[in-house]
Parts: sequence; structure tokens; C-alpha cells
Amino acid sequence: MTKIHFNKITILGVGLIGASFARAMRKNGFCDHMTGFGRNTGNLINARERGIIDSFEAEPAAACEDADMIMFSTPVGSFINLTEKSRSAFKKGSIVTDVGSVKGNLVYEMERLMPEGVYYIGGHPIAGSDHSGIDSSKAELFRNAKYIITPTENSDAGALETVSGLWRSLGSNVLTMTPEKHDRIYAAVSHLPHIIAYAIVNAVAEIDNSYLGFCGQGFKDTTRIASSPPELWRDISLLNRDNLIETISIFRKNLDMLEYYLSTSDAEALEVAFKKARALRDGIGPN
Amino acid sequence: MTKIHFNKITILGVGLIGASFARAMRKNGFCDHMTGFGRNTGNLINARERGIIDSFEAEPAAACEDADMIMFSTPVGSFINLTEKSRSAFKKGSIVTDVGSVKGNLVYEMERLMPEGVYYIGGHPIAGSDHSGIDSSKAELFRNAKYIITPTENSDAGALETVSGLWRSLGSNVLTMTPEKHDRIYAAVSHLPHIIAYAIVNAVAEIDNSYLGFCGQGFKDTTRIASSPPELWRDISLLNRDNLIETISIFRKNLDMLEYYLSTSDAEALEVAFKKARALRDGIGPN
Repeated sequence: MTKIHFNKITILGVGLIGASFARAMRKNGFCDHMTGFGRNTGNLINARERGIIDSFEAEPAAACEDADMIMFSTPVGSFINLTEKSRSAFKKGSIVTDVGSVKGNLVYEMERLMPEGVYYIGGHPIAGSDHSGIDSSKAELFRNAKYIITPTENSDAGALETVSGLWRSLGSNVLTMTPEKHDRIYAAVSHLPHIIAYAIVNAVAEIDNSYLGFCGQGFKDTTRIASSPPELWRDISLLNRDNLIETISIFRKNLDMLEYYLSTSDAEALEVAFKKARALRDGIGPN
Repeated sequence: MTKIHFNKITILGVGLIGASFARAMRKNGFCDHMTGFGRNTGNLINARERGIIDSFEAEPAAACEDADMIMFSTPVGSFINLTEKSRSAFKKGSIVTDVGSVKGNLVYEMERLMPEGVYYIGGHPIAGSDHSGIDSSKAELFRNAKYIITPTENSDAGALETVSGLWRSLGSNVLTMTPEKHDRIYAAVSHLPHIIAYAIVNAVAEIDNSYLGFCGQGFKDTTRIASSPPELWRDISLLNRDNLIETISIFRKNLDMLEYYLSTSDAEALEVAFKKARALRDGIGPN
């Protein structure tokens, strides 16, 4: 493998993931200069003072000038607009990538928007959490985490190898799949649980707000991701709407079945369903 | 407060909670002799070898003989049957208590089954987890945890004070409420999340079994309690059936609402609902 090195990387969105990526690149000596862009100037100043980025710009196009790699780590809902605003500044031969939780159509739209000779490769590190912001960022965030890369038939082979190699070097377990498959999988194992966590918390508050004060560890674990950033999850949900609606309907069918066993006091069927779920859950490990 | 001391305590069910209670009593010097009873003789031998209990019996009545306190820490579904089998051996003046996750009617049935001069006080430490068995037990399990005590108008004032004082001495935050209120609260903050966790895991497996292998931390947290013991949760669900069905219907309404916002691409309504849930979830603390 050739040595990984970029003269300049632009980080669009210096939050948990963007800042962790910048820290990881710095720590590994993969980049000389990192420039940030984001809506919140105070955050950018903070990131520069801490040495997470080296500089920042008030406009995305200015931030992207002369960059060898442009990393989209803003909420997914902003990718298209940001690309339209900044693509005129993308350098020929540069790589544009992202860490968005939704791929699907977005990947093809991003590809379509790339100037001639600029290579887009979509990716998604499975390393989010209910935490957000640079205070929670760390260089080791991606180590031993899955990283999904979603090339299409239009992807440049060299750019694909560069992005894959980069994430492998950050310690991630790189998995390749189509944008469509990515979105079906993550509708089920990520977007559905978020929607459900938000719905549980709102349901308990509707029953009686004061009940929340009596909860134990189980409730806390089950609803932890309801603390995730609302704007981000609004965008993710809408961008993966059709898959998400389908997974909600299959979830609802499973919930309805458990409720039916309950209402008919079918102890055996209830136990069989619980046992099946436990065996599956145990299969993915404890933490 | 008078010194807490029991000559003999009987632990019916030496699992996570029963063994942790025994360890805590031992550590605090609150009891000279603890006798266990349970279905699994190997487990009882193990508990005795580790010094968690001092002896055990093959029949519940034999285990309860001469005990000053009898602790029901078997799955809640077994309380009535066990009481019927052993109550002839309950000593006059002794206290019968439990750690069941459902109170409601069960408390009144237990009261009704007590022999003359034997005092039943229902309780529920909020300290369960997806772990089970004596390997996970520890004397400190109840420290800084909530303990709900559910007296009725029939409860003996002295026995109530003894049980409250005992749990306070184990470091628990003792909260008093009616059995009915307990069951409404825990249907919402504990039994509902369990049913949902089981349903999510089964739903994802129905969509595609292999998808489980792609999950991240959010899915693991949200479904952790799907690893809880199926027989136990079968009993809890059935014993609190009416409250649970009501909470499921309110949850379903909240989920349907989110799905409606999704299907109509109502970004603003989605964000408002997510923001509300986040503020509520943040309000109960991070861990």
C-alpha cells in the first residue's frame, strides 16, 4: 500500500464525527492542513484552538479550495445544498467523501453534482452515539468500528481504494455494499430503533410525565438514542423514508402479535417469541 | 432505629436478586442463617459453596420453617403456588416479602394467603438487568437504587417499618406507593420497553436475519433488555396485562404519529416530536 498523505483536507461540519475524523487524521500523520467549515463560528474557533483543525472559512467554497479531500460531515440533509454552493471550488483530482447515515439516492445525486475529474465515494462509519459535538470527539472513535463504503458503477477505482485504505488505516472494519442495501439494513438496525426510542419517551410522557422519574436501567438503555440530535434524525428519517416506513410496518406487526398473545393470555406463544428475541439479541454480543 | 437482625431468612429463588439480597444481608451482618430454595439444585449447591446461603432445602415448606423473614425472589408467576405449598410452615410473627416486578392484585392475593399473625409486605427493587443468575449477583446491587414498597390498608405497621428500614440500610431509596400505582408506572417505564425490545429484535430478524450483524451501539442499547429471561417476562407481562395493553396502545399512537409525519414528509412536525423526546430523555440523566 502506498503511504496515505493529503496536503489539505476540508472538513465540512466539525461535530462529533467530523472532529473525530480530523483528530484521527492528525494523529496518524495523514494530513498537513485541515480546514473546517460550519454554521457555528464559535465551534470552529474552539476546534482551531484545540488543534483539531488548522483554519476555517465562513463560506464552503472558500473552505474547499485547493483541498485534496473534502469530507462531508454535516447533517445529511445539507449535502446537496452545500455541494451546489462549493463544487466550483473542488480541485481536479480531489476526492469528495462523506459520513452520512443515509446513502441511496443521495450517493447518485452527489455523483451527478461532481465536476469533471472530481471523485465522489460515499461512506458511513458506524460510530455515532447520542453524544454530539467536538467535546465528545476522539481520534480512536473509528477503531474497531464498522465502516460501510458504498461504491456505484460510476465510482473511480483509485479513489475507492484510497478511501477504503484510509479507513482501514484508522482501524475500521471496512465493508462494501450498494447504497440501496446500506439503506435497507440501516433502516432496520438504526433508523427504526431511533424512531421507536423517540416514540417510547413521548408515550410515557403522555401517560404521565412524572413516571419518567421512576425508571430503571432498562428504560435508560432502551431510550438512550432519543437524546440524539433531532435535526440530524429528522433528515435521516426523511431521506430513508420508504425503507423506514416498511420497517416500521414489520415492527408494528411483531408488536401487534405480542399484544395479541397478551390479550389472549397465551403464555406459551409469548414465551416462544421472547425466547426467539433473546437468542437473536444474545447473538450480537453484550455491549 | 432498632438494630436490624434476623436469626433466619429464607430465600425462595436464589438468582440475581435473591442472591444479591442474601449477599447484602450477610455483608451488613443482618442475618445469622440464610436458607435457600429453588428448582435448580446445582445452583443451590453453588450458592452454598460460595457462602451466599448457608443451607438449602428441596421443599419450600421445609425451607420456610422457623424463618423470621421469607423473601420471594422467584419469578412472580410462581408466588401464589409457592405460598400455597409452604404457608403451613410460616412462623407466627414472621415477615413475608418479595421483590416481584408486578404488585397489583398479587399483593392482595399474597395478603389473603398469609396465616394468622404472619405479615406480608410487597416490594420491588429497581435493580434488575438483562443479566441473571448468581454469577451476576453482588451485595451492592441495591445501593443508590430505587426500592418501591407497596403497603395496603391491611399492612402491619411494624412489619412495614422493618422492611422499609431494612432496604434503607441496604442503601436503597425507598419510595412508597399503592400496588395499583406501581403497576401503572412500571407498565410504562419497564414492561413496555421490554415488549418493544423483544419486538424490535424479532422484526429485524424477520426483515433479514443477517442485518443484525451490521448493528451499531444504538441498536445494542435499545435492545439490550431483549436478553432478559423470557419466562420471567412472560409472567410479568401477563400479570400486568391490562396496564401493559393500555401503554402499548399509547405507544402505538405515538409511533403512528411519527410515521404519519414521515409519510407526509412533515419535517417540522418530525423535528418538534424528536426535540420533545430528547428534552424528556435528557431530563432523566445519561446512564
